[in-house]
Amino acid sequence: MHDSTVEHYRAAAVIGGGVIGASWTALFLGRGLRVTVHDPRPDIESIVRAAVRSVAPTLAELGMEVADLVEDSGLLVFEADLDTAVADADVVQENGPERLELKQQLWAAIEEAAPPDALFASSSSALPATAVAERMRRPERLVIGHPFNPPHLVPLVEVVPGARTDPAVAERAVAFYRAMGKRPQLVKKEIPGFVANRLQNALFREAVHLISQGVVTEQELDDVVTSSIGLRWAIAGPFETFHLGGGPGGLPAFLEHFRKSLEEVGWPSLGAPSLDEPTVALLSEQAQHFGGTVGQLAARRDAAIVRLMRALGRLPAQAHESL
Amino acid sequence: MHDSTVEHYRAAAVIGGGVIGASWTALFLGRGLRVTVHDPRPDIESIVRAAVRSVAPTLAELGMEVADLVEDSGLLVFEADLDTAVADADVVQENGPERLELKQQLWAAIEEAAPPDALFASSSSALPATAVAERMRRPERLVIGHPFNPPHLVPLVEVVPGARTDPAVAERAVAFYRAMGKRPQLVKKEIPGFVANRLQNALFREAVHLISQGVVTEQELDDVVTSSIGLRWAIAGPFETFHLGGGPGGLPAFLEHFRKSLEEVGWPSLGAPSLDEPTVALLSEQAQHFGGTVGQLAARRDAAIVRLMRALGRLPAQAHESL
Repeated sequence: MHDSTVEHYRAAAVIGGGVIGASWTALFLGRGLRVTVHDPRPDIESIVRAAVRSVAPTLAELGMEVADLVEDSGLLVFEADLDTAVADADVVQENGPERLELKQQLWAAIEEAAPPDALFASSSSALPATAVAERMRRPERLVIGHPFNPPHLVPLVEVVPGARTDPAVAERAVAFYRAMGKRPQLVKKEIPGFVANRLQNALFREAVHLISQGVVTEQELDDVVTSSIGLRWAIAGPFETFHLGGGPGGLPAFLEHFRKSLEEVGWPSLGAPSLDEPTVALLSEQAQHFGGTVGQLAARRDAAIVRLMRALGRLPAQAHESL
Repeated sequence: MHDSTVEHYRAAAVIGGGVIGASWTALFLGRGLRVTVHDPRPDIESIVRAAVRSVAPTLAELGMEVADLVEDSGLLVFEADLDTAVADADVVQENGPERLELKQQLWAAIEEAAPPDALFASSSSALPATAVAERMRRPERLVIGHPFNPPHLVPLVEVVPGARTDPAVAERAVAFYRAMGKRPQLVKKEIPGFVANRLQNALFREAVHLISQGVVTEQELDDVVTSSIGLRWAIAGPFETFHLGGGPGGLPAFLEHFRKSLEEVGWPSLGAPSLDEPTVALLSEQAQHFGGTVGQLAARRDAAIVRLMRALGRLPAQAHESL
């Protein structure tokens, strides 16, 4: 049986080598695992190797050994045959397209070819484990392990068991991600979109409303967020923030004071925008003004996330500390 | 006439000495202004002096001179008569209760007693300037200057002109707050709740839904936010975040990819919770588990905000730099 510590995870199979898969690949390599990437695209090797090299400096900043990321030491291999790719995996992290039928087929196949005690996790951002595992003989083996972009850097992994997932599998996943230096959160109840994306969708809907109404531009709204609520939410979540907003009486006092205005005015007045053609055109036009290419902006963000985590004492533990 | 630089603001009148008023008082003192506080409560002086002293270490961390905050140097005075309180003010920052009638009366009175070129700003978090200024002879003088808790620390001030506000007044307010070391954002169009609170309300509504459905606890949800979306939003707002989530194609590619699922699944599936008695009881019960008193948690948050701003190179400019 696998133990929960990283030493018992030596080989990972990463199924799907897109942005998320490549980021997992880099992290697993940085944590000392062998990684086999499976992806049907013929040019997958050059894409993933380039992606892995590009994040090596960031992982080095986080204290990881990155020699295996920048040169071909043999720890990273590519395998076009799915069965072979997972045959000796201790953990399979699947990052296929968000299409139910496809994920169901993938997992039915993975289950047949992988070792009987390998840990199975899907990066699915919305499809729940119950549905994804439907064609598996042993659906109790699958759990959602949903990361946030960029997965090698943002700490959270939502671990979401399905209706039939063995609780021990969810616990193993939590321990595995913790050993990878992540901050896993077990989500007790399966709900579409899980937790963080639902919260993000709610805020984004109102953000789209404010842009479509001409109240502010995208850049102005972003600046509002980074200099107020985003800044606070990096440190204290929405409940603690309102707990502190209630004075000595905390959240109960806050709710006593604002309950009526939230329920009668604040919430009902939120917008319900459409993503119709004119709105998408407006949003896309304003997106031309972020002041850099996506690559430049991403590099700036990643460097800032590292600085922020260091300042808050939240850099991931080193491999030996996490055992 | 007043110039836009801090040197031309020597005397501030702070109307209402609650949490927000006391925080403005500390900041204005730390920036070298004389401050007159007006508040009907008989014990206001001891309350505000204690609040000002308690935030002095934080303002010192931000590089301000705090001698006038910790000892009575005569720069902070209390005046029970409103007319006298504003008689020689260069700027009046009003922080009365969020009741329209009361704010309208206050501003009609302030206008009569204050110098004709004083800057007038209301900290109102929801009531718009158009309504607040309704009984003023010169409504063009009033603008909203809405800060975020704690105002001496969180950079944003939403500057929201009303329908009749003189654009020059809004510009003066932006320059004044900038000189105070804040990050003002002019909100072009008046909308109830302005920008940040609307976004916050939208996220909080879904947060309440997730707690009421038993998906996670308040502490788990807070941890999800601080380790994912909150962390990112401290650095890049929601639009830049999704711009980077779209890969090289940016936000247009992101919208192309997620538009349908957002509009057809993500947004319609968001919750519409009630703040009825059982929900408020549940939220209040879980709020007992933040692991400290409100004072301890606030001190921890404030120290973390300073560390975060320092790490991101976002400490406010010193007074001489901001001129």
